[in-house]
Amino acid sequence: MKPSRPIQIIPIHCIPEIRAHDNLPRILLTAAKKSKLSFRQNDILVLAQKIISKSENRLIDLTTVTPSKRAYDLAAANTKDPRLVEVILHESRRIVREHPVLIVETHHGFVCANAGVDQSNIPGENVVSLLPGDPDASAKKIAQALGRLTRKKIAVIISDTFGRPWRLGLTNVAIGCYGVPPLVDLRGTRDATKKRLHASIIATADELAAAAGLAMPKSSGTPAVIIRNFARKPSIAKATTIIRPAEVDLFR
Amino acid sequence: MKPSRPIQIIPIHCIPEIRAHDNLPRILLTAAKKSKLSFRQNDILVLAQKIISKSENRLIDLTTVTPSKRAYDLAAANTKDPRLVEVILHESRRIVREHPVLIVETHHGFVCANAGVDQSNIPGENVVSLLPGDPDASAKKIAQALGRLTRKKIAVIISDTFGRPWRLGLTNVAIGCYGVPPLVDLRGTRDATKKRLHASIIATADELAAAAGLAMPKSSGTPAVIIRNFARKPSIAKATTIIRPAEVDLFR
Repeated sequence: MKPSRPIQIIPIHCIPEIRAHDNLPRILLTAAKKSKLSFRQNDILVLAQKIISKSENRLIDLTTVTPSKRAYDLAAANTKDPRLVEVILHESRRIVREHPVLIVETHHGFVCANAGVDQSNIPGENVVSLLPGDPDASAKKIAQALGRLTRKKIAVIISDTFGRPWRLGLTNVAIGCYGVPPLVDLRGTRDATKKRLHASIIATADELAAAAGLAMPKSSGTPAVIIRNFARKPSIAKATTIIRPAEVDLFR
Repeated sequence: MKPSRPIQIIPIHCIPEIRAHDNLPRILLTAAKKSKLSFRQNDILVLAQKIISKSENRLIDLTTVTPSKRAYDLAAANTKDPRLVEVILHESRRIVREHPVLIVETHHGFVCANAGVDQSNIPGENVVSLLPGDPDASAKKIAQALGRLTRKKIAVIISDTFGRPWRLGLTNVAIGCYGVPPLVDLRGTRDATKKRLHASIIATADELAAAAGLAMPKSSGTPAVIIRNFARKPSIAKATTIIRPAEVDLFR
């Protein structure tokens, strides 16, 4: 039997430090070219949240932030900078857990530590990045611009590393997507023994983000990865559909 | 700049139905050969839990099971087969949630639905599979046998698809491993801007399992995937180290 075409996970190197209002699709094309890479039809581009946040100017200088009483209290319990806690509260619609880590529900509905507010890989000592305001819209915009520039169909996932209950460690997950199905519902289809599958909804966008995470070590400044040869049905469903609705969530 | 070697995710086709006491390493080598694949130094082999369970005879015929009163009660609440619930209880050391899904902590410490007991991809109407008794030991045994047969260093991950709180859909995760680090602790290392990373422990084995999941669709009977060109430090740490200890778990 002929081997199938392997799925490939290809990092795009040579991406410069991204600044507010940069034309990210053009920068990505230039960097790919420098890496001797060209986009192909149906490639999936996975982008670390941070370069989206930088290009969309979702950065806050903590020296401009005045913490509230609530931020001071939470900061004291978690030995955190109260200004950082103030920013986290502003990005949250609900606090899930106050201690030992601030676990919150963001305005998008994602449950994660510190509302995704983060200081790593950002130039400047007091600057933090926020998650993009609408990561699905950001993914769509970039996918469409890349489509115009390359005349190829390119899907986009915007990813961030989130922790999870029950298991240690962060994994890269999808917080925005366009052109790949966030969830693939196999219920009612049949397994290899022809039995019907009952509980099989696969979080495909999260598995793609995790795969890309393997080529995005935090120390390397590689915020963009191409996943090639992954067969899937086209989709315009949003990554926010991955959020477990409150009524079926065991922890709300 | 030269492109780096992409990480590859390569399914091994032509694996026959696995039976109790089969020599899995030899079967995998034969199947790889039929797929025109050969193992390379430092390949990571990701194996779906089910073929391990089959080869280790971790199957139960439900017609041999007598449910307890507790199993009948839980089964009624979840419209499940009481014999299946009895098996799940037997595989569990704690029930995390009784309804609408049985979420339990297995004897290994994994928190998942139905203790990983599953009817899909098993021949026979009344037969269910249990998780391997010690998936880390299974991974080690297979890695060592493949090492002897191929004279190459091959890492092994045993994976299963688990659900998670907060996000819908299953992702493939590591329940056993040998030769890859389950967690990579980046705390104290520096990011691309030379700032120290604080909260960065990456669940590498889970990201590898998720990546393999992309090439293991449940309908295809592809229970084995090679991940190639993923650079990592050697490790003999167990996948059970991924389990969040009770004292730092937000949900116990």
